[in-house]
Amino acid sequence: MTKQDKISEAVVRRLPVYLRYLNELSASDILTVSSQELGARLNLNPAQIRKDLAYFGDFGRKGVGYNVSYLIEKIRQILKLDRPLYVALVGTGNLGRALSNYNTYLKDNMKIVSIFDADPSKVGMVINNLVVQPVEELAQTVKEKNIAIGIITVPAAAAQKVADRFVEAGVRGILNFAPTVLRTPEDVRIHQTDFTADLLSLAYYMNFDSEDTTKGTLEDESLVD
Amino acid sequence: MTKQDKISEAVVRRLPVYLRYLNELSASDILTVSSQELGARLNLNPAQIRKDLAYFGDFGRKGVGYNVSYLIEKIRQILKLDRPLYVALVGTGNLGRALSNYNTYLKDNMKIVSIFDADPSKVGMVINNLVVQPVEELAQTVKEKNIAIGIITVPAAAAQKVADRFVEAGVRGILNFAPTVLRTPEDVRIHQTDFTADLLSLAYYMNFDSEDTTKGTLEDESLVD
Repeated sequence: MTKQDKISEAVVRRLPVYLRYLNELSASDILTVSSQELGARLNLNPAQIRKDLAYFGDFGRKGVGYNVSYLIEKIRQILKLDRPLYVALVGTGNLGRALSNYNTYLKDNMKIVSIFDADPSKVGMVINNLVVQPVEELAQTVKEKNIAIGIITVPAAAAQKVADRFVEAGVRGILNFAPTVLRTPEDVRIHQTDFTADLLSLAYYMNFDSEDTTKGTLEDESLVD
Repeated sequence: MTKQDKISEAVVRRLPVYLRYLNELSASDILTVSSQELGARLNLNPAQIRKDLAYFGDFGRKGVGYNVSYLIEKIRQILKLDRPLYVALVGTGNLGRALSNYNTYLKDNMKIVSIFDADPSKVGMVINNLVVQPVEELAQTVKEKNIAIGIITVPAAAAQKVADRFVEAGVRGILNFAPTVLRTPEDVRIHQTDFTADLLSLAYYMNFDSEDTTKGTLEDESLVD
């Protein structure tokens, strides 16, 4: 396998987005796609797309575009989705339930195979065909099922303890949904999905200047420099 | 209000993370914090933090650190969280339910005030003190309640239609959770929260090279270049 350590996080983050759309095209029996078409659909600059894909070799043919199925195969290889990748989830509240239903979206060999909860009253429940296990079984199940990735959907206060469990059990990647920053060893990759930060940072882009400030509830303008 | 158009998205995205931790410090009656302490807690480079905060003026005092309550006030002003900001959510599945419970995390004047669903059987249900309204009422409610931000937690196939409704109703920002790229006019800011891309991109960082490849299910190494 070639090392691809130089590919930036931003590029790696866009590849699944390309992949999803390419899978849609493939399902519609569309055989080729241009960077212009990809860009228009994905709100991205076609030149950016060509640059992203050029990291991985010369896929496109000028005037013809990319071969959809070849590009799907290549991106799956690059993302290492060409082999099974098993995922465990801890925390079966509303968010955990929503995610455990995402197996349908994931395809590509990545699959949530086990779900856990610390609450004894949740243990034994069946959610999307998975039986909720007690969190004490996590380490053993991770080893038995060769689970590489952990998803954390527990409250913020409980999240670090779950991360520690995952690390001890030997997972190599964690996707954390709890609104808190977790500490993990350097060789365990952690991605943070932070709704509240996503939402709060939107506020910055709201252009209140153009608004009629006499309207409604915006009365504390005096606080602003 | 000063224009801060030059602040990068990455900085704007980190500010809510700073804010959340500063609020925690404030709740524990901690009055000052150094960039080193912030960095250690948030897995960020202290120099990066100083640089981020320097965009907005000279807050810190050498050897003393940042005044926590002053920094909270400043970040809230910068993010425009110093005034009420109302949010509507469409889609009351598991994910929508999980999010409608996030009002407790949001604080800072941002509040989910209305929730909608296209499914008549959901209309009238009460979720976290909010009554589910029919999606047909969206435009009127957005205007009446001065709602600025929309959250989309519907299936991918229905998401563009909901985005169009939000845009027509006059929201200025959208947070989309549906795994699809949405089209909106340039003056409507859209943030995409994409679980599946977060999860699939993790696969790239899994280091299979160091693994015993005779073990388990990794049999298609031959596919890799």
